[in-house]
Amino acid sequence: MNIKAIDKKYVLPTYARADVEFIKGENATLFDVDGKKYIDFTSGIGVVSVGHGNKRVADALCKQVSAITHISNLYYIEPQALAAQKVVEASGYDMQCFFGNSGAEANEGAIKIARKHGERDGEIKRYKIITLNHSFHGRTITTVKATGQESMHNYFGPFPDGFVYADGIEEIESLLDDHTAGVMIELIQGEGGVEPQDKEKVQKLAKLLKEKEIPLIIDEVQTGCYRVGEFTASQAYGIEPEIITLAKGVGGGVPVGIVMTTLKNVLSAGDHGSTFGGNYLSSRAVCEVVDILNERKASGDLEITSLLFNNALESFYKKYEDIFIQKVGFGMMCGLRVKDADTLTNIINAARQNGVMVLKAGRNTLRFLPPLTITKEEIDEGFEALSRAVSSL
Amino acid sequence: MNIKAIDKKYVLPTYARADVEFIKGENATLFDVDGKKYIDFTSGIGVVSVGHGNKRVADALCKQVSAITHISNLYYIEPQALAAQKVVEASGYDMQCFFGNSGAEANEGAIKIARKHGERDGEIKRYKIITLNHSFHGRTITTVKATGQESMHNYFGPFPDGFVYADGIEEIESLLDDHTAGVMIELIQGEGGVEPQDKEKVQKLAKLLKEKEIPLIIDEVQTGCYRVGEFTASQAYGIEPEIITLAKGVGGGVPVGIVMTTLKNVLSAGDHGSTFGGNYLSSRAVCEVVDILNERKASGDLEITSLLFNNALESFYKKYEDIFIQKVGFGMMCGLRVKDADTLTNIINAARQNGVMVLKAGRNTLRFLPPLTITKEEIDEGFEALSRAVSSL
Repeated sequence: MNIKAIDKKYVLPTYARADVEFIKGENATLFDVDGKKYIDFTSGIGVVSVGHGNKRVADALCKQVSAITHISNLYYIEPQALAAQKVVEASGYDMQCFFGNSGAEANEGAIKIARKHGERDGEIKRYKIITLNHSFHGRTITTVKATGQESMHNYFGPFPDGFVYADGIEEIESLLDDHTAGVMIELIQGEGGVEPQDKEKVQKLAKLLKEKEIPLIIDEVQTGCYRVGEFTASQAYGIEPEIITLAKGVGGGVPVGIVMTTLKNVLSAGDHGSTFGGNYLSSRAVCEVVDILNERKASGDLEITSLLFNNALESFYKKYEDIFIQKVGFGMMCGLRVKDADTLTNIINAARQNGVMVLKAGRNTLRFLPPLTITKEEIDEGFEALSRAVSSL
Repeated sequence: MNIKAIDKKYVLPTYARADVEFIKGENATLFDVDGKKYIDFTSGIGVVSVGHGNKRVADALCKQVSAITHISNLYYIEPQALAAQKVVEASGYDMQCFFGNSGAEANEGAIKIARKHGERDGEIKRYKIITLNHSFHGRTITTVKATGQESMHNYFGPFPDGFVYADGIEEIESLLDDHTAGVMIELIQGEGGVEPQDKEKVQKLAKLLKEKEIPLIIDEVQTGCYRVGEFTASQAYGIEPEIITLAKGVGGGVPVGIVMTTLKNVLSAGDHGSTFGGNYLSSRAVCEVVDILNERKASGDLEITSLLFNNALESFYKKYEDIFIQKVGFGMMCGLRVKDADTLTNIINAARQNGVMVLKAGRNTLRFLPPLTITKEEIDEGFEALSRAVSSL
């Protein structure tokens, strides 16, 4: 049986998989089982931040798995402590970290911290979490409910109460009440369609929440780890949230989720935990990825890559203004609004056939999340392939 | 700053860590930062099923991370398909798999499947999940609520409704109603105190639920992957559940959670998902771990190791009948009930000082979850160290 048949027989049909099977990657270049080459403008939905098969990460992980992979959080774990330090220092915030295994687990941790914080604040129990319509916060039952997409609130209930949805940043103020435990937003909605929030509105909200002592939770599962130029999008927006969640890019491909917070005294021993979270393997990956990207930030390479990518995207956009209606995004999290959803699907399929991988976001956005280490040659090759794809429609 | 100081500064204080920092492991032998040697009777709470630094796993992971670690479930992933096949074939059940990143995520998937299945069954919405008191099902807000321990249902609410707790297997029948979507149990409660359920009672329950068409969910996060002699404890109990969850030992140290089910047509594309779940890294680990343990099962090595361990544990128990009141467990998931909780804490600390790692479970159980590959020499050395520890009290 070939792999596709085995997959269909043994894996639950929760994914509509495209007809391709990759077996090797080199930075932003992928090779499928037939030896065909593709440029990867997706990095596995923002995960492979330092490229496929990154030698420094591979060497660090090889060394780690040969020595020790996992022991449990009952004991001190050197790379976990170092990963926490690196992440906190790169953020510049006075925070502490908890390690889980996914973005959903990081957001679960954020909600737990906000709600326990709300419980300590006096007689009125603060439990409500305000999120935004079109947001995406995960696939656990609670993070599905936190996700402001009505279409996702089916089948799996009863969902937990206490989630309130705002239409936009400006609407949040009117929804705050004595029971509000936190406000959770993405600064650039990823799954929702690459939708950056307005900086001034966000800063105004952050100031208001500080006055009211309501924690601001920034879901940086997709925006974090230098995706938008700074280590966190929160830094780029000039705000100081109480809670930040990270996942995807921060592990470079190893499953990891991090919740970090200024609220260091809310959770006590036993309040939260994870068997795998922060083990030697995943936290060693975090250490290496953050080191690599810190260096690229310091050398200016990160900014040059972002400029090269955005220039190429802009040229491409200008070339096909009959198909695309707007260029959107921030840093290396970019999108092109497509005039209609059918065309978008056709572009993604034609792109794959022409040797470049791109993503969908929201209803009509062609999404780009390339590795932060993509080279000029890869960028050029990818947009040449994408031009062929669009021209072929 | 040393690692303990860095940990205290940058990691949230959710763990009461013991004062030890391991840097290397070889099978069931650990070495700390000072070069001191320990025998590991914990395997990282049942995770490192094929031992620390297992060469086959390390080589497979090294090869994998050098080629490709992650791409996303939008495409076919060879090791994910193979891991699903290996897991399903080892179980002997006609099931399909979904891959997440932890036991909690696997149990979230199980609850989602049972509830969506309940929704399809007619006009009455089946949503209630019955679990057992003293159970442990995870740390997400929903799995915390699924956990039948009143002390855990604090701070983080509102929790989702629809969880009902039974005092024991016999009580479940009286709790079934038209809204019951599933029954979720551990066959041997791990965190609850190494408490095996009665086989006949479980079989009777399984038969009753089949008649009523209510899915039986077996949480095998701790019992699965040959921990109790068969690939699943469900096989050892001679039952055919509709849903089984796996995590811990099945990844050998790499974060992975699997929900597998006979209910193949409940979830459709888009109903559930995971960014990291089943990626090349974690599913390659599953492939290698299951291969290794399949071979040990076929050769008889698995059974010999279990016999050797249990014989040594029995001798140790007999030697200290003034301290221990009962030997409990199944396969390589064992415990000794200690006459009181203070003595248990003293034993665990003295054990560590004498060079053997053991765990606590429930209120008064000394828990043993050694790697399934532990050697006779390691077993002997571990119990010698434990004897020294107990004698020193």
